[in-house]
Amino acid sequence: MEEKDCIFCKIIRKEIPSSIVYEDDDVLAFLDISQATKGHTLVVPKKHYKNFLATPSEVSNKVMEVAKRIAMAEIEMLGAKGINILTNVNEAAGQSVMHFHVHVIPRYEASDGFRLTLDDNSNEKDLNLPILANKINQGLK
Amino acid sequence: MEEKDCIFCKIIRKEIPSSIVYEDDDVLAFLDISQATKGHTLVVPKKHYKNFLATPSEVSNKVMEVAKRIAMAEIEMLGAKGINILTNVNEAAGQSVMHFHVHVIPRYEASDGFRLTLDDNSNEKDLNLPILANKINQGLK
Repeated sequence: MEEKDCIFCKIIRKEIPSSIVYEDDDVLAFLDISQATKGHTLVVPKKHYKNFLATPSEVSNKVMEVAKRIAMAEIEMLGAKGINILTNVNEAAGQSVMHFHVHVIPRYEASDGFRLTLDDNSNEKDLNLPILANKINQGLK
Repeated sequence: MEEKDCIFCKIIRKEIPSSIVYEDDDVLAFLDISQATKGHTLVVPKKHYKNFLATPSEVSNKVMEVAKRIAMAEIEMLGAKGINILTNVNEAAGQSVMHFHVHVIPRYEASDGFRLTLDDNSNEKDLNLPILANKINQGLK
């Protein structure tokens, strides 16, 4: 359940140094080297799973729980005004390391370095929402 | 545990129509009216909690589990190539409705309408990562 060449597995094995925020038997949290905002933290399971969808819920629940605690700590200790909690699945969604990780991104002000735009694209011609909802529902396992 | 004027509580009570993707006793998933991308879905607990940090883990775990299943269904049924799973805490992070919700945003291509940029801002002068990591750690409950 670990991959020799995975950079996060190397961080977990302490072969690559990182600034560790939290560690237990199952989960590691460390500062993202790119610091999209001050305190930007990655929370990962110690076992290697390629993304959120490939991770058993028992494990992803532990990761999310640590993300929640870190978010609270960042509000208290760093004076963050808000937090984005995000996981990207696959390259098409911006996932760059193929080891499940949750971004905890503290927010301070509009110009704090992180940009996320949820535009209204509902005017696209081919969207029939009830039909679309039903189609997704049909795929639920 | 519900709020009279909360738009998501109204959707849950069926006072406002929505395109429902999934429903059980605890969780509702419906298409976001703005459709940042085709199939953009919101997953919410039926009980009102103002955000992820205010939601008991037992409840947020159920919400995340439904988000995971919807993400898988969107890959299978809509041909999505990736998925962003996101929750925003507080207005400073872009939260617009103060009822905990997880965005499931299927991704198709770079220009599919959703923009998320995780810039490298690590060159900001005042960042000492080991000290910063320790400071966050001190706030963990």
